[in-house]
Amino acid sequence: MERIGFIGLGIMGKPMTQNLLRAGHSVVVFNRSPGAIAALVSEGAIALSSPKQVAQHADVVITCLPDSADVEAVVLGDDGVIEGARAGMMVIDMSTIAPTTARKLYDTLSENGIQALDAPVSGGEIGAQQGTLSIMVGGDDAAFQRALPILQAMGSNIVHIGVAGAGQVTKACNQIVVALTVQAVAEALTLAKKSGVDGAKVREALLGGFAQSRVLEVHGKRMLEGKFNPGFTLDLHRKDMNIVLQTGRDVNLPLLGSSQVTSLMNALIAQGKGGLDNAALVSLYEMLGGLDANER
Amino acid sequence: MERIGFIGLGIMGKPMTQNLLRAGHSVVVFNRSPGAIAALVSEGAIALSSPKQVAQHADVVITCLPDSADVEAVVLGDDGVIEGARAGMMVIDMSTIAPTTARKLYDTLSENGIQALDAPVSGGEIGAQQGTLSIMVGGDDAAFQRALPILQAMGSNIVHIGVAGAGQVTKACNQIVVALTVQAVAEALTLAKKSGVDGAKVREALLGGFAQSRVLEVHGKRMLEGKFNPGFTLDLHRKDMNIVLQTGRDVNLPLLGSSQVTSLMNALIAQGKGGLDNAALVSLYEMLGGLDANER
Repeated sequence: MERIGFIGLGIMGKPMTQNLLRAGHSVVVFNRSPGAIAALVSEGAIALSSPKQVAQHADVVITCLPDSADVEAVVLGDDGVIEGARAGMMVIDMSTIAPTTARKLYDTLSENGIQALDAPVSGGEIGAQQGTLSIMVGGDDAAFQRALPILQAMGSNIVHIGVAGAGQVTKACNQIVVALTVQAVAEALTLAKKSGVDGAKVREALLGGFAQSRVLEVHGKRMLEGKFNPGFTLDLHRKDMNIVLQTGRDVNLPLLGSSQVTSLMNALIAQGKGGLDNAALVSLYEMLGGLDANER
Repeated sequence: MERIGFIGLGIMGKPMTQNLLRAGHSVVVFNRSPGAIAALVSEGAIALSSPKQVAQHADVVITCLPDSADVEAVVLGDDGVIEGARAGMMVIDMSTIAPTTARKLYDTLSENGIQALDAPVSGGEIGAQQGTLSIMVGGDDAAFQRALPILQAMGSNIVHIGVAGAGQVTKACNQIVVALTVQAVAEALTLAKKSGVDGAKVREALLGGFAQSRVLEVHGKRMLEGKFNPGFTLDLHRKDMNIVLQTGRDVNLPLLGSSQVTSLMNALIAQGKGGLDNAALVSLYEMLGGLDANER
């Protein structure tokens, strides 16, 4: 079995590492803050002191970090993965970052004989814990085939989309669809409420027809109950929407709906709600419509 | 069994009437144009010459017409249903109209001892043919119970939402969610295409996660294939969005997403595409993004 290095042991990275350990992989880890290190070491992981060291002791290095700049620094920066790497290694970035950064990483790593995949995930903390993440993969087919048994320890819906960057483009598409569907459900349920109509009945009726979606099912319920404990925070979704809008600029495509919903997220974050689940978008509509959230 | 009158024998009304006939109801019909009359008469319907006459020969009158003004004229206007009606009758309006008009009809009919339900549908021509429509009902419970066996001949997902107008509010909510989800999928698939990523793979990956919806499944496929034969036309969806925006104004709720997507529908209709399926929204993004539709 390949020796794995895992860098970035946050809400997603920690349970993903645990699933790799449980699948029998030897795993070396690095994280900027000590947070999850002790728990993972007690399960068999070995803690190292830099991304460079991780690369020196692994065949496949996985990164799972907040944003494009973090991944670029960890992989290509001082004491980074590339400094400890050798030809034949593989780097799998499972963060959500800009497709342009993913392509840059691929180009630089390829020049050094290192395979690279962009493999962002969806499914959240629960999907990470249960090993049922959706994984959207960009990169060469040979690298994908090599990575597949490793990815299968972490996810259940693993699709090889295309060349380098294609995984990140797909994740951007995913975040567009989720954001606009959340807005759709928020707008509809607030209109029902303002019109004196029972939102639970509306949700039930709509789930039986063409308006059906997972967002209506899960977030519709959260909105009706006013339960916005994350979940997936507005802060993180807005970060991903910034990648979406940047990707739109890169190809000169106006993303009218994505621009608007990102503006609404900006407003919620300005109101101190960035740490709430993205279903809290409904609270902005309630505020705009003069509804007291306490009456929900 | 109740004697039924059916007014409005268009794409939806004709197959709905056929299902009532097949369920064993006696049905009298009226339509402004002769179109579907002959076919329905050959299946046992009796053709009459005005909404007033229909009311005189039926216990329950169903209307299925294009817009608010049509229903108001047919029910309350000259030679209308109300002129031939008597106490104890029932009127079920299955058109998609403004909730305010539905409430006005309810009030006027109630004053005359006539039961009234607003019962708009979703599920399209195929749902009408197969008797599997979703039916969203507003009105009194006694009227709903009386109507249920009749509605069951036409639909399979029948929900009593609340008081008069609640069915139409629910239909407005349904059209919001469908419109914004269509926009979401159009924006995502165009971004994929502009980025050189296979939209079919993106759709497949997204269907396995939180971005899943019926719209992504059905309209996503239509967009990828460029097949925009209706379906549900942009003309009709824009008409319904006008009801949505009017309902938002009535309760002073800004419907930011609905306003934007209605503007995009306006643009498509200006380009002569109003007769296409609403999935053709993607063609506006392709045009904006400088993609030749022939390259799809």
